[in-house]
Amino acid sequence: MNGRIRNSEILKRVVSAEKAAELIKDGMVIGISGFTPSGYPKAVPSALTKRVNSTGEKMKLSVYTGASVGPEIDGDWSKAGIIARRLPYQTNKELRNGINDGSIEYTDMHLSHVAQYVNYGILPKIDIAIVEAVSITEEGFIVPSTGIGNSVNYIQNADKVIVEVNENQPIELEGLSDVYTVENPPCRKPIPMTAPGDRIGTTYIPCDLDKIAAVVITNLMDKTRPLSVVDDVSKAISKNLIKFLEKEVSENRLPKDLLPIQSGVGSVANAVLAGLCDSDFENLTCYTEVIQDSMLDLLRCGKAKLASGTSLSPSPEGVLKFREDIDFFKDKIILRPQEISNNPEVIRRLGLISINTALEIDIFGNVNSTHVMGSKMMNGIGGSGDFARNAYLTIFTTESIAKKGCISSIVPMVSHTDHTEHDVMVIITEQGVADLRGLSPKERAYAIINNCAHPDYKPMLLEYLKKGLKESPSKHTPHLLEEALSWHVRFIKTGTMKNN
Amino acid sequence: MNGRIRNSEILKRVVSAEKAAELIKDGMVIGISGFTPSGYPKAVPSALTKRVNSTGEKMKLSVYTGASVGPEIDGDWSKAGIIARRLPYQTNKELRNGINDGSIEYTDMHLSHVAQYVNYGILPKIDIAIVEAVSITEEGFIVPSTGIGNSVNYIQNADKVIVEVNENQPIELEGLSDVYTVENPPCRKPIPMTAPGDRIGTTYIPCDLDKIAAVVITNLMDKTRPLSVVDDVSKAISKNLIKFLEKEVSENRLPKDLLPIQSGVGSVANAVLAGLCDSDFENLTCYTEVIQDSMLDLLRCGKAKLASGTSLSPSPEGVLKFREDIDFFKDKIILRPQEISNNPEVIRRLGLISINTALEIDIFGNVNSTHVMGSKMMNGIGGSGDFARNAYLTIFTTESIAKKGCISSIVPMVSHTDHTEHDVMVIITEQGVADLRGLSPKERAYAIINNCAHPDYKPMLLEYLKKGLKESPSKHTPHLLEEALSWHVRFIKTGTMKNN
Repeated sequence: MNGRIRNSEILKRVVSAEKAAELIKDGMVIGISGFTPSGYPKAVPSALTKRVNSTGEKMKLSVYTGASVGPEIDGDWSKAGIIARRLPYQTNKELRNGINDGSIEYTDMHLSHVAQYVNYGILPKIDIAIVEAVSITEEGFIVPSTGIGNSVNYIQNADKVIVEVNENQPIELEGLSDVYTVENPPCRKPIPMTAPGDRIGTTYIPCDLDKIAAVVITNLMDKTRPLSVVDDVSKAISKNLIKFLEKEVSENRLPKDLLPIQSGVGSVANAVLAGLCDSDFENLTCYTEVIQDSMLDLLRCGKAKLASGTSLSPSPEGVLKFREDIDFFKDKIILRPQEISNNPEVIRRLGLISINTALEIDIFGNVNSTHVMGSKMMNGIGGSGDFARNAYLTIFTTESIAKKGCISSIVPMVSHTDHTEHDVMVIITEQGVADLRGLSPKERAYAIINNCAHPDYKPMLLEYLKKGLKESPSKHTPHLLEEALSWHVRFIKTGTMKNN
Repeated sequence: MNGRIRNSEILKRVVSAEKAAELIKDGMVIGISGFTPSGYPKAVPSALTKRVNSTGEKMKLSVYTGASVGPEIDGDWSKAGIIARRLPYQTNKELRNGINDGSIEYTDMHLSHVAQYVNYGILPKIDIAIVEAVSITEEGFIVPSTGIGNSVNYIQNADKVIVEVNENQPIELEGLSDVYTVENPPCRKPIPMTAPGDRIGTTYIPCDLDKIAAVVITNLMDKTRPLSVVDDVSKAISKNLIKFLEKEVSENRLPKDLLPIQSGVGSVANAVLAGLCDSDFENLTCYTEVIQDSMLDLLRCGKAKLASGTSLSPSPEGVLKFREDIDFFKDKIILRPQEISNNPEVIRRLGLISINTALEIDIFGNVNSTHVMGSKMMNGIGGSGDFARNAYLTIFTTESIAKKGCISSIVPMVSHTDHTEHDVMVIITEQGVADLRGLSPKERAYAIINNCAHPDYKPMLLEYLKKGLKESPSKHTPHLLEEALSWHVRFIKTGTMKNN
């Protein structure tokens, strides 16, 4: 075991994945470690799938995680019909299908809210927590691997805990985590952090020894998501972002070394951040959810000093490169519970620059991050709401068009609102930058249309705005409710938002 | 002067309101004290109006406040065409007309955001701050009166400061204020508060002596807004609220003495809170923006121990009653800058119960607080976004119908979103309570329709939901975009949302 399980009591509880999976019964609530395919348990979930598929037994679970977890859970469990209810975030195709066909109830939550919902018993109680660990300490405490998420709260509130000690996770991950727990109100104290690099907790998750019902030894890679190649559109967005940040610094609205950066998840977000490697900025820090490839690159090239997140989730190639340089990264990365990485208190205090991706944006500055054509769930809001509302500077990026130009990402009215006009400060597309701060809705509309919309849709958007200013009951937000969603309706009917 | 101006240098700067108003020039940015018609300057604004009306000179100002200010500014300045731009909140009829006819640019902002927008120079710089004071200290520091709002930031960032020392404001108000300033990022420290009653600052606003350009002595009442009589609908909402809170306590999801209460502004909010006087709850605390009549009643009847806000703004009768008992209230009320009363850090840490009023709510739990029929600005989002996103428990109340039943406050899709499905935990109407926590959108829809909608509209709402579940591209949020806003369109065309 190379010293991975250092408590002799716990060592006696090592069983097979199949044996551990026997603890899971129909109707249970399961709390799972991990965040954006990193640090989630793999062997026990797969053993359960295998059993259910072979026996055909009824198995409907409520599954709580940090965010998205690997295909062994979100994919295979969805296909096997095991997931009845899922929260708070996902990115898996099979799971998405289940959500949209109505067979899976999905609660799309602000990621910082989950911990207090669990601690205070607002959500149904957790029966079993299944968590991945790098090791278990002498005291029987759990050392998390690559994604912490809500593990602390799930462990504290579960009746039983199953630990997967994953020998595939480098032992050097020990020490990366900083586990700090927040009291329930009214007993909360200030979170004692004033910089993204402050260590305020322990490197392990405390756990009542009696709770640990089974330990499984595994050797399985995180199935993180591959990144697509950085394309010209992402490069253009990134350039616009950097130009904007440079202007803010030159006008004294941002410090020279910027403020701690939060960046959304996925290929575009990763590509946008990657541009900072070629910028003149230095001494950057990141205070974010997910540490992706480009954040590691920023550390590697010396542009960034430090990255704090709740999950270390580079692409499959990025993981291998990280492991090669793990000693270099060890003192530059901190992993925290998502209640801390996404905490409004910390976000506001540190004064983050929050950069997230929008699905669509309307001319008055409202953002849809979740629902395709107003109904179909894509992934979920994730932590973007924790950050967007409370950051110092909130930026949303998107390509100005989608589906080969059949969709305009800038529309008269969003078909679903995740971030309201009050939260969206700056919009950046490959076309340009709209700085909305301090503007009225109609001023915002001109800024967005003129700077961010695709030329193919600019005349149509201007026409809607001008007609609204003439015919709407108010010139404050001059909507025409009969036409406001007509672009979406047209797309559903004809396959394009274009009107000819 | 009864010792109201205790600095001899400052005493020399006392001038008439007309003289002070001469400092105000066309094109200036003016920062004004006060919040929800309390503690705003009165004499200088009125002198300016008089001058502009008599000379016909061009005068277009950007006017920043805490929230709504009195008719001397929001009303008379709007009528005189003095306001070119206004932020961050208002409730005045003339101003509202100007906003909606397009003659006034209005930036409707989260109230906690204004301070950092001003401090960091994101908004155009303030030329003159006009603030009301109870007194000026020996050091020349300014003791605010009944509404602090953004006074601290406006004073710190203005080129010149005009102070109205209002002898009508009881001298006993000295000591109520607790002025604490937040650094700009990246230098922010934890706000050292763990209970609503903690005093962490000074009772005055520090001000550079050289900046005080004029002092005007006044004797004018705050023109606070009268409250309408508590009607049966408000009583029913209040009863439903209390029943819900009692249930939460009995299920250990709230402590016995509840958590600090934030309550929105206006007659309905006031009436809803009033019901707590007859409840069994004790030792309540309030951490809110505006201390209205019913919060004073809660203190008076001993149900509440303490109220913290940024403004003391009872109705005209409430003000007189407060003044009679001012010694009783003195150690039970704290007034703070709105950057503190509305700070996400404090809101999350204290774990507030946030109760705000909705204009309309859709079946999936999105709330419109600002825009009538999607276009026309009513008041603004105020602080509701600071609280709703970051509180422990977020409740929205509304009567289930409006305009004598021609409008359903529960609609298929809100015509504007201020609070997204992720923020809205509980909805209370006179019909009942919908607890949305942990539910999926379609589960929420059944909970809202069955518990909160008016019987006249329930069948129509159920029909929309069922049709959506059959025909929408997704069963997650089963909208039909062609019909989603049809109720609003029907109301605009026919004067009722009813379809016969």
